[in-house]
Amino acid sequence: MQALILAGGSGTRFWPLSRRSFPKQFLALEGGRSLLQTTVDRQRPLIEPGDVWVSTTEALAAEVRHQLPEVPPEQVLAEPTARNTAPAIGWALRLMPVAMQGGVVAVLPADHRVENAAGFRAALESAASVVARDDRVMTLGVTPSRVETGYGYLELGSVLDPEAGLRRVRRFTEKPDRAAAERFVESGDYLWNAGIFVFRGSTLLAHLARLEPVIGAGLEAIAAAPERTAELYGELPSISIDYAVMERLEDLATLPLDCGWSDLGSWASLGEILVRDEASNTSHGDVLSLDAADNLLWAAEGQIAVLGVSGLIVVRTADTVVVLPKERAQEVQRFVEALSAAQRDELL
Amino acid sequence: MQALILAGGSGTRFWPLSRRSFPKQFLALEGGRSLLQTTVDRQRPLIEPGDVWVSTTEALAAEVRHQLPEVPPEQVLAEPTARNTAPAIGWALRLMPVAMQGGVVAVLPADHRVENAAGFRAALESAASVVARDDRVMTLGVTPSRVETGYGYLELGSVLDPEAGLRRVRRFTEKPDRAAAERFVESGDYLWNAGIFVFRGSTLLAHLARLEPVIGAGLEAIAAAPERTAELYGELPSISIDYAVMERLEDLATLPLDCGWSDLGSWASLGEILVRDEASNTSHGDVLSLDAADNLLWAAEGQIAVLGVSGLIVVRTADTVVVLPKERAQEVQRFVEALSAAQRDELL
Repeated sequence: MQALILAGGSGTRFWPLSRRSFPKQFLALEGGRSLLQTTVDRQRPLIEPGDVWVSTTEALAAEVRHQLPEVPPEQVLAEPTARNTAPAIGWALRLMPVAMQGGVVAVLPADHRVENAAGFRAALESAASVVARDDRVMTLGVTPSRVETGYGYLELGSVLDPEAGLRRVRRFTEKPDRAAAERFVESGDYLWNAGIFVFRGSTLLAHLARLEPVIGAGLEAIAAAPERTAELYGELPSISIDYAVMERLEDLATLPLDCGWSDLGSWASLGEILVRDEASNTSHGDVLSLDAADNLLWAAEGQIAVLGVSGLIVVRTADTVVVLPKERAQEVQRFVEALSAAQRDELL
Repeated sequence: MQALILAGGSGTRFWPLSRRSFPKQFLALEGGRSLLQTTVDRQRPLIEPGDVWVSTTEALAAEVRHQLPEVPPEQVLAEPTARNTAPAIGWALRLMPVAMQGGVVAVLPADHRVENAAGFRAALESAASVVARDDRVMTLGVTPSRVETGYGYLELGSVLDPEAGLRRVRRFTEKPDRAAAERFVESGDYLWNAGIFVFRGSTLLAHLARLEPVIGAGLEAIAAAPERTAELYGELPSISIDYAVMERLEDLATLPLDCGWSDLGSWASLGEILVRDEASNTSHGDVLSLDAADNLLWAAEGQIAVLGVSGLIVVRTADTVVVLPKERAQEVQRFVEALSAAQRDELL
């Protein structure tokens, strides 16, 4: 089995710790290893680093190779321009040797968290057997652990294998409102879409060529004239693998994943995961907290000293410090927008 | 007239901007000139820098001379050990040439704010005329502009000169509780004690020798053997000029000062003075504020970015950042105590 790790993201939700040139997947939010490194570590020994491919951007490729010296450098693929996940996955599959293309490939986001790595590997292994046996396209949906309006959901369809829990995916849904999310979770017929896919490479390429012929033709043109990659890749339509393929497959199958998954979507979600002190503060680095409770205090550089405040996120880096309430954690990107508008590139 | 500026203070209320080696009087809280520099500027042309004396500590003397190049360096006096204001003032007066000792001297704290410098000079000039004419010891009490429990008050006694507003001081009071402060301010018979004194130098020395003979004898011993200053100065009792002399004088007189005085006692008091933006935030330096109101945001280095918070003080320096509610501004010193206990001298 090959792993194809998608590490081209440039999210802003962990600003100011994450930057354009150092996005979330490079951050070590829980200790020594970054999310990207942990994404490689998690599969071992099921998938060893020699069988890992990473899709990223030109701007990030050097850091990916630096963080993953165990992955063959030629398997770190730098998109000439960012064209979203459908072209990225198609191009990576097309570049694989034919023998690997014909084998099982797992697509894995580089910036998620999984508590139980052994459980994750077991689920991946089950999905790989289904793919090997039936040549299905699979997604691993996450069993919801709470009512959550921030994720897309997979609506489950007919049961394919009751023993394994294998079911068809009837439909992808956009992020629901609260009432719908409550209904989804209560019903037991929905899983969170975690962006994890398992398939035979050649099968996915065939689906992609059938459903998005422009991408299919573009990938063939690149394969025929690799020296024109930069030019031709930029002409591919920018579209996600969900929209391009997954949501349009009659026969997408899923297995439930229940192993402490989180997409670490904000500073607040990190605060929920990390260890808290007796006053319910989560601290990183040099922090002095007096009469303060329920804060996330992250000192990447220098000290944070708080007194008498609660429910705040405070993140200090060498060049800025951010202070906002936990319940508005998602709005961190408004800082990025404002600084971008003000051309404060040195802070982005 | 000579000015004797007391610049030996080491307060912690403006931590982390103020440090042991760079206390409040050295800070430029309103722009280009520090509080110490402004204290010299304010008297000109009534008192020119050549007639300014500064009492400070050995640790701070170099910075005082650096900030005040216009003051003769030999008139910046460094106490060998800090012994509070009575020895400091006595020693400075004793070091003055006899002709100056016999003239009018104004004692001025180095870390206060005065909005109306011309009004301040006029009051100082009036006090100086009273001293020159009657050889009284004078204090300039501040006309209260609000009920304030954070200051000591001067209770006014008999009227000495109705036209000039000259009155005796009946009593010094400690910081009052709220009810007493309300009564004081309503009565019109109380002024705030601002620690500003005007007298003939030789007269104050005589009072000091009479009321605190140990200090008087000590100062004579130092004058007789200046090479033993370090040793002898350290033996002087540590006592304030208020306790040693002012509160014990039968005949202390006062003129009211009404010219926008503040002792800048905390970050919150600074927030009340500085210009606010349309959201009622006070900002210094590189500040990005989104949906945030009524905060004091002070970026001495790097950026401060806040969203959705109100009533906070946020102060960022190169090595730390402080976050606390305005109404607890006085508690900034608890950080200093905690860091001192933890031997974090680099932050103090």
